[in-house]
Amino acid sequence: MREHLIIIKVGGKIVEEPASLASLLKDFSRIAGNKILVHGGGRTATMISEKLGIETKMVDGRRITDAETLKVAAMVYAGLVNKSVVAGLQAHGNNAIGLTGADLDIIRAAKRPVGEIDYGFVGDINWVNSSALADLLNDGAVPVIAPITHDGKGMLLNTNADTIASELATSLSGRYDVVLVFCFEKSGVLLNEADDKSRLPEIDVAEFERMKAEGSISGGMIPKLDNGFNALRRGVQEVVITNVQGISEGLRGTRLLLES
Amino acid sequence: MREHLIIIKVGGKIVEEPASLASLLKDFSRIAGNKILVHGGGRTATMISEKLGIETKMVDGRRITDAETLKVAAMVYAGLVNKSVVAGLQAHGNNAIGLTGADLDIIRAAKRPVGEIDYGFVGDINWVNSSALADLLNDGAVPVIAPITHDGKGMLLNTNADTIASELATSLSGRYDVVLVFCFEKSGVLLNEADDKSRLPEIDVAEFERMKAEGSISGGMIPKLDNGFNALRRGVQEVVITNVQGISEGLRGTRLLLES
Repeated sequence: MREHLIIIKVGGKIVEEPASLASLLKDFSRIAGNKILVHGGGRTATMISEKLGIETKMVDGRRITDAETLKVAAMVYAGLVNKSVVAGLQAHGNNAIGLTGADLDIIRAAKRPVGEIDYGFVGDINWVNSSALADLLNDGAVPVIAPITHDGKGMLLNTNADTIASELATSLSGRYDVVLVFCFEKSGVLLNEADDKSRLPEIDVAEFERMKAEGSISGGMIPKLDNGFNALRRGVQEVVITNVQGISEGLRGTRLLLES
Repeated sequence: MREHLIIIKVGGKIVEEPASLASLLKDFSRIAGNKILVHGGGRTATMISEKLGIETKMVDGRRITDAETLKVAAMVYAGLVNKSVVAGLQAHGNNAIGLTGADLDIIRAAKRPVGEIDYGFVGDINWVNSSALADLLNDGAVPVIAPITHDGKGMLLNTNADTIASELATSLSGRYDVVLVFCFEKSGVLLNEADDKSRLPEIDVAEFERMKAEGSISGGMIPKLDNGFNALRRGVQEVVITNVQGISEGLRGTRLLLES
């Protein structure tokens, strides 16, 4: 029988606010067995950039990463946010280890080619070192992954945390039964954005396409669901969208299904 | 026979300047066998603090670390500098992994008690997890250590990089024959600060005390030598002070001796 692995991606808003970070640390640290945390940190990056006088440019919710913005991303994601989470998990008795894609060469990426938009130092993932991650998990370590990858030639690259979580889940599904969880501020996919009780318990691809066409699914949720359905198609056992409370309540949230 | 381990501490000035960083990466990556790199980053931290409008307070060459300065230290040391070095070593074929003391709980420290001076969030090292470091070394990984520790209760702490290098060396000398190298801008301990050729090939404790009394050894060199002699007394095989060139030239520099 294959071992289980849970990969939880938490949005910036959760790790950046002391109260929600404290809940997350408590709930995440109680999960038994193999687990990986992937985090964002965009709001702090935007705030630090502002203070440093670096303009934040976004296109379709994606950050344009010039050389100075990349430095801020490395500082905030891999330094401030990652190490705060690691120290917090250690305090809860989890043997956390903070990693970027460069550490142990766990995520190799290529700088996105310049097309209509030049995203700058943004990396598209080529390869996940699932063997190095499995070694850490076997040793009882809890990887905490910052959304920074590298190209193997010395360049750090900014990479979307949802995509990292989905690629890790897919790659590690060759070794484990993987549950992938996208944890954000809402209780799941909502029929009515303003009403947390309007959560869909499940969503399938057809429903997703219908809601997308109707415009009833908005901005940041679309890439999350795209990533989630892709992960299911590529061997991940289960994908759930939820909030921090949902983690401690048996992964109550919206479960993704390829077909109902 | 015990295995060898070389621990190299590099000063901020070396890792923060592209040209000297490039030499360091080249020379360090060529060292065969077990190795650990410990780095500083104070100059960048000072610069980023200034840009963020945070005042840098120093007492006797030691940074006073208030809450905001600690955040900058985590960002610069564990994020920007550490990950740039890791990505650079990966490009040179070294399987680098960047770590703070919180990662895998490798360095546990206690916040320095407030005495005449309140150093703020500065950690004095209590314990080094030499077993976790030995596991990484056995797997062929190259630990790259940022000067940040933790207290095991969720608090990150700023810790002097020379002290980290010396404590790691001492702790790991229980398992390895350890050579500890302090690598900075000068070729070693100089009789005349302005003349790199006035390097002492060796220095013993008596000579160090004499030079200290005469005032011919200055500021930053005193804690380096204190740390180095302490490491020798506590089981480290060899301690050398040198510059980047010295690393590639058979560790040519100033060798510390307890007695000649």
